[in-house]
Amino acid sequence: MMSRGCTRLGSSIGPRYLSTATTWRTLSNDCIKAPAAGVRCKSTVALGGDKQQEEKQAVGAKDAKGIVSYWGLEPTRVSKEDGAPWKWTCFRPWEAYSADLTIDLKKHHAPATLLDKMAYWTVKALRWPTDLFFQRRYGCRAMMLETVAAVPGMVGGLLLHCKSLRRFEHSGGWIKALLEEAENERMHLMTFMEVSDPRWYERALVFAVQGVFFNAYFLGYIISPKFAHRVVGYLEEEAIHSYTEFLKELDNGNIQNVPAPPIAIDYWRLPPNSTLRDVVLAVRADEAHHRDVNHFASDIHYQGRQLKEAPAPLGYH
Amino acid sequence: MMSRGCTRLGSSIGPRYLSTATTWRTLSNDCIKAPAAGVRCKSTVALGGDKQQEEKQAVGAKDAKGIVSYWGLEPTRVSKEDGAPWKWTCFRPWEAYSADLTIDLKKHHAPATLLDKMAYWTVKALRWPTDLFFQRRYGCRAMMLETVAAVPGMVGGLLLHCKSLRRFEHSGGWIKALLEEAENERMHLMTFMEVSDPRWYERALVFAVQGVFFNAYFLGYIISPKFAHRVVGYLEEEAIHSYTEFLKELDNGNIQNVPAPPIAIDYWRLPPNSTLRDVVLAVRADEAHHRDVNHFASDIHYQGRQLKEAPAPLGYH
Ligand SMILES: [Fe+2]
Ligand SMILES: [Fe+2]
Ligand SMILES: [Fe+2]
Ligand SMILES: [Fe+2]
Repeated sequence: MMSRGCTRLGSSIGPRYLSTATTWRTLSNDCIKAPAAGVRCKSTVALGGDKQQEEKQAVGAKDAKGIVSYWGLEPTRVSKEDGAPWKWTCFRPWEAYSADLTIDLKKHHAPATLLDKMAYWTVKALRWPTDLFFQRRYGCRAMMLETVAAVPGMVGGLLLHCKSLRRFEHSGGWIKALLEEAENERMHLMTFMEVSDPRWYERALVFAVQGVFFNAYFLGYIISPKFAHRVVGYLEEEAIHSYTEFLKELDNGNIQNVPAPPIAIDYWRLPPNSTLRDVVLAVRADEAHHRDVNHFASDIHYQGRQLKEAPAPLGYH
Repeated sequence: MMSRGCTRLGSSIGPRYLSTATTWRTLSNDCIKAPAAGVRCKSTVALGGDKQQEEKQAVGAKDAKGIVSYWGLEPTRVSKEDGAPWKWTCFRPWEAYSADLTIDLKKHHAPATLLDKMAYWTVKALRWPTDLFFQRRYGCRAMMLETVAAVPGMVGGLLLHCKSLRRFEHSGGWIKALLEEAENERMHLMTFMEVSDPRWYERALVFAVQGVFFNAYFLGYIISPKFAHRVVGYLEEEAIHSYTEFLKELDNGNIQNVPAPPIAIDYWRLPPNSTLRDVVLAVRADEAHHRDVNHFASDIHYQGRQLKEAPAPLGYH
């Protein structure tokens, strides 16, 4: 079991240097030279306090400047609250937040209509092969499923954006709310990437699944946004369940409770000594919020109204 | 000339109540009952100080609550700096900014390679029918062209987002930068909608143009992002030119310099007594920034590198 699929959490704290290049590694290759960094290696810029690293960052900066100076565009300089430079380009300080861990995790939308039931059983049917494939490898599962979870928000946002332009009308904030959801899901992926590594055939699988799911959801959203949002609502209910299982595996020691990756600490404003468990708690709370937003969106359509008629729950993580 | 095309600026300050319903009007229909509001009528919530209106807003709120209460989601309450409630759902206080009017408007990317020249002449060729159609109706032209201008950022953002998920890699902030551009362009549209009104055949035209342009840009971006960004860079150069002409028409009195719509005052942090001229100045500065971002993105590709290798100019309006 351990050898199948993406590097298992806790069994892979050692250096893994041949995996995907991230921005950080491309700009300042210190990851390749800092073997002590272990699991945190991927978010190299967050290592800090290292002279050698600073030099390399300077080289990286010069390099970037080579590109940048052509149009005189300097990357925007942002600082953390404590004055330290902001290390991430994928999110900004004002997008960081504390996850609302008090959210009701048990809330379930009981499928009433035929369309609801179709949505519910679609999701249940999808769960079966997923369970079979991943078994109890929840770190891997989380990472893989986040690549799918980030699609619906982006597709919905795009379609509402185009509709808003085409019809000369406001969206009631829903474009932004759905794009926020997509960004949030992508941040989940960026976080789990730090503690898990996909194998080549898992990459291939993600490739294929994205191709199918993107097009299916795109078409589905055009035909019935009511159905599309309901499906996502149920997907999020399943996500909550699978993160709860993840927590159980962490608690019973089957998955090692490694330190939280720096990117997660900055994103969810976690205390510096946080662990993977804290990260999973924050992610699970996010999923509960997505569940609410999507069931809510579906309900609006059920009432024969349009999303723009109800102000979107913005900044609702 | 005056009677052809969308209601001409300055000749249409009177009530226009049969136009597109916005969120505001749908939730609280006071626009229909407030004939004194004139050109500002569309952004009804910004009228304020009216008892009758407040009552109607309460009805609207109850109505919205009917939808909202199902999942217990309340719209997030946000306040302005002065404590007044925030009136817009399409953007939030922290997205408001002061346009950088000092930006170089004359900067031009001289086309060097064949691909550059193709991009340049594509844009020049598109300008010819556009000039013919709009002539000197710059308000209408601005509104119509913003429906197109908001597409590339969204398409680029979507494709980079999917790529980031598929490849398990950071985007260097480019997803957000391109989505920011799209949001900014949509805000341009929301602003010009307040001072200009599309006729039915103009709506039909926008519909058709979006269908063609969206697909063309989507395909173009997949084939060559280098070319796609270069085209947008040149489109923005043309946009600067057309807003400069707009300003000339405002200055020589051909277009009436009406008060700035409230949404524009809040978005660009303009003083309360600002006029359409100030709005056009801010919009033109935005276009100059889009020009820089897109030529920059194209340059990165020209150097055989990927966007993620250079931190994106985030929050660069
Ligand atoms: Fe997620
Ligand atoms: Fe989710
Ligand atoms: Fe624009
Ligand atoms: Fe633009």
